[in-house]
Amino acid sequence: MDHFTYRDNELYCEQIPVSAIAREAGTPCYVYSTATLCAHLERLQSAFASLNPQICFSLKSCANLSICRLLVEHGAGMDLVSGGELERALEAGADPAMCVMAGVGKTDDEIRAALREGVGWINVESEAELARLRELALDEGVRPQVALRINPDIDAHTHRYTTTGTRETKFGVDFERAVSIFERHRADDAIDLSGVHVHIGSPVLTVEPYLRTVERVIGLIDAVAERGVTITMLDLGGGFGADYESGQSPAASDYAAALTPLLQSYVDAGLTLVLEPGRSIAANAGILIVRTVYTKVSGARTFVIVDGGMNVLLRPSHYEAFHFIWPTSVRERTHVPSMRCEHPSMDGLERVDVVGPICETGDFLALDRSLPPIERGDLLAVFAAGAYGMVMASRYNASRLPAEVLVDGEDACLVRQRETYDDLIEHERTVTPLALVEDVAP
Amino acid sequence: MDHFTYRDNELYCEQIPVSAIAREAGTPCYVYSTATLCAHLERLQSAFASLNPQICFSLKSCANLSICRLLVEHGAGMDLVSGGELERALEAGADPAMCVMAGVGKTDDEIRAALREGVGWINVESEAELARLRELALDEGVRPQVALRINPDIDAHTHRYTTTGTRETKFGVDFERAVSIFERHRADDAIDLSGVHVHIGSPVLTVEPYLRTVERVIGLIDAVAERGVTITMLDLGGGFGADYESGQSPAASDYAAALTPLLQSYVDAGLTLVLEPGRSIAANAGILIVRTVYTKVSGARTFVIVDGGMNVLLRPSHYEAFHFIWPTSVRERTHVPSMRCEHPSMDGLERVDVVGPICETGDFLALDRSLPPIERGDLLAVFAAGAYGMVMASRYNASRLPAEVLVDGEDACLVRQRETYDDLIEHERTVTPLALVEDVAP
Repeated sequence: MDHFTYRDNELYCEQIPVSAIAREAGTPCYVYSTATLCAHLERLQSAFASLNPQICFSLKSCANLSICRLLVEHGAGMDLVSGGELERALEAGADPAMCVMAGVGKTDDEIRAALREGVGWINVESEAELARLRELALDEGVRPQVALRINPDIDAHTHRYTTTGTRETKFGVDFERAVSIFERHRADDAIDLSGVHVHIGSPVLTVEPYLRTVERVIGLIDAVAERGVTITMLDLGGGFGADYESGQSPAASDYAAALTPLLQSYVDAGLTLVLEPGRSIAANAGILIVRTVYTKVSGARTFVIVDGGMNVLLRPSHYEAFHFIWPTSVRERTHVPSMRCEHPSMDGLERVDVVGPICETGDFLALDRSLPPIERGDLLAVFAAGAYGMVMASRYNASRLPAEVLVDGEDACLVRQRETYDDLIEHERTVTPLALVEDVAP
Repeated sequence: MDHFTYRDNELYCEQIPVSAIAREAGTPCYVYSTATLCAHLERLQSAFASLNPQICFSLKSCANLSICRLLVEHGAGMDLVSGGELERALEAGADPAMCVMAGVGKTDDEIRAALREGVGWINVESEAELARLRELALDEGVRPQVALRINPDIDAHTHRYTTTGTRETKFGVDFERAVSIFERHRADDAIDLSGVHVHIGSPVLTVEPYLRTVERVIGLIDAVAERGVTITMLDLGGGFGADYESGQSPAASDYAAALTPLLQSYVDAGLTLVLEPGRSIAANAGILIVRTVYTKVSGARTFVIVDGGMNVLLRPSHYEAFHFIWPTSVRERTHVPSMRCEHPSMDGLERVDVVGPICETGDFLALDRSLPPIERGDLLAVFAAGAYGMVMASRYNASRLPAEVLVDGEDACLVRQRETYDDLIEHERTVTPLALVEDVAP
């Protein structure tokens, strides 16, 4: 699953005690494991090997430059959803041709940047965007490879905020319209519309929604082939699960075993398969470390108040997401966790709310959770926080964005400096009058 | 209510067309009205005049330096909840003695900073914090004025994430324990524990929960007086509502009329009253401007895709909060809105989802909302976005934090520069090895 393990009573990231990292880097702090990141990428490459997929890491899940660089060095392209992510990918050394770019609201500037940099595939989400992309491609004098994002109308049974493949979401075009769009652009001089993109949501914790999606997409590929359009690229999106609890997610090999038989003949005939894993690579590869500032009892509840909350990790509050939380140093050998779950079966645990310092009740990391007794100063690890953690952090309550550390065996590097108070104010120091004279009301 | 009004078919902020601001500052962009900010502050000062309150603006609701400076110049102190907010208040020229500092997770560094800067009142949230504050005050050689935050066990009937006055939240100490805590610290050489702080949530849209809270607090003040402790300061917190819909919130004078009779005799006898308004000052004083990138129809739904979503304004997604949204330029005179509500009674409106560019279904500003026909390029104003807007913004999907503009009559100033792509990466460029050699596992 990952390289965050207890030795004796101490949590290690690879060869380094997590408490030592916290001492040097401070808290709150994200800590990532190189070995875990690489293993997760290789696991996917290996599981889908017979389909020879182009694996585009979903940068939106975990955007740190050093992590992106690492994955690029190990053969990954990047799945991008904005101009900012394109900048990050380039800075990380990604080959633009190995990148795909999606996003429902691409601005002209973002499309032009993708065209100029030579992004491998631009995934278009609507007919309006397709029309605009044509104009801009003609203007830029390039003929991009374009994939049409299809809304397969498949419910992936994940959180309503992260289900993206049902008809009632903003993503992609209806299945029925797709055939005619492909036909209309069959011999388009401005764009090469020959890719299909689907993405049904995240995390998807069973194989079955993917199976149904691929069956539908194959139907589409066959239907447009009958009309003379050859689909050369299928982007299956991401959404593979992660182990928020031990053993929660299917293995990469389970997904591959189910999908390969359906896709092998298409790939053998020349179809390029793209996968966009983000969570399945990054989630278990990162933890958040927070320090206990106070404990308190109020009414029937016990609160463990830590120095980072919804500002550093929004998922528990925003998606009611579960993250296993445990002290980085346990006082009793019997409290070394053998599996990650909400209520481990051990003696001597207490039910507590783990809450952050932010001034609202929605600021929590865990509610009614079984933990060993926690004292002021104790460090807690919030597991599987590597995806949709740091990227969603905010400066709410004038908090500084946290540090990030990347561990590789016996080495640990600060790969993102903690913000200073000055960073928070920097963009507000200069006050510039806007030149609006002619617009002022009489 | 505010100074965002339509003249002919154009939305103005004070004397300036909002579309002109968008042209100069770009989108997404927050725009604030000086006249509205000042009017809201003065409204509270005036309504509560006979109680001569110290009004501490809740900086967490809207933290822009120029706005804080403006309110300080008009007599406000600041309500702070972190070291970062203290830095902001000082930078804005606030008198520390006119500031109060709350927060459930104050770190040692934050407490020391408050002690050194001479923050007027430190509002303590737990007995553990009180003990720590004593130690730090002795160490720093200052005797601070301290208020005990009481949990009055009052349900303010707001969102479960922003109800802060019930017993099951992390805030304050139980009513019953408060009396004995005050008694224990009656002649404490280290701290002057003579203030009471309550805060029941936000927004509180009726007067009644405040009435019950004040009745309880008065009971506490009387009870500790019997034990020889004179309460010299009562901080009633904030939470006064704002007009997300027209006429939704009680007037400042309504709150004052209800509370003044209960408090007048205490104030006349020497009690200092502190109020912590944030939302009621800032919410209606700011709008968010976004630009329509595409429109699309998917199944039975119509989507208006704009260039800012949950990354710039989290409230709709996180709290299911309502924000009135309307084009800054309307094509038909009949579509000038006479009131702000979900479904204005006008001909020719369409039901749409207003969604952002972020790659998840939870990224929306409004669902199933009645709007005039919207076209690509149209600017939309998201009203009452001045509080808990910019302060909760994130860089999710590698988006740049937006610009902020402060309008004053015929003048408009950029008071926060839009971030650049480089800003997003800046802290990740330097990779620094951590000095952990002695900690590495053998």
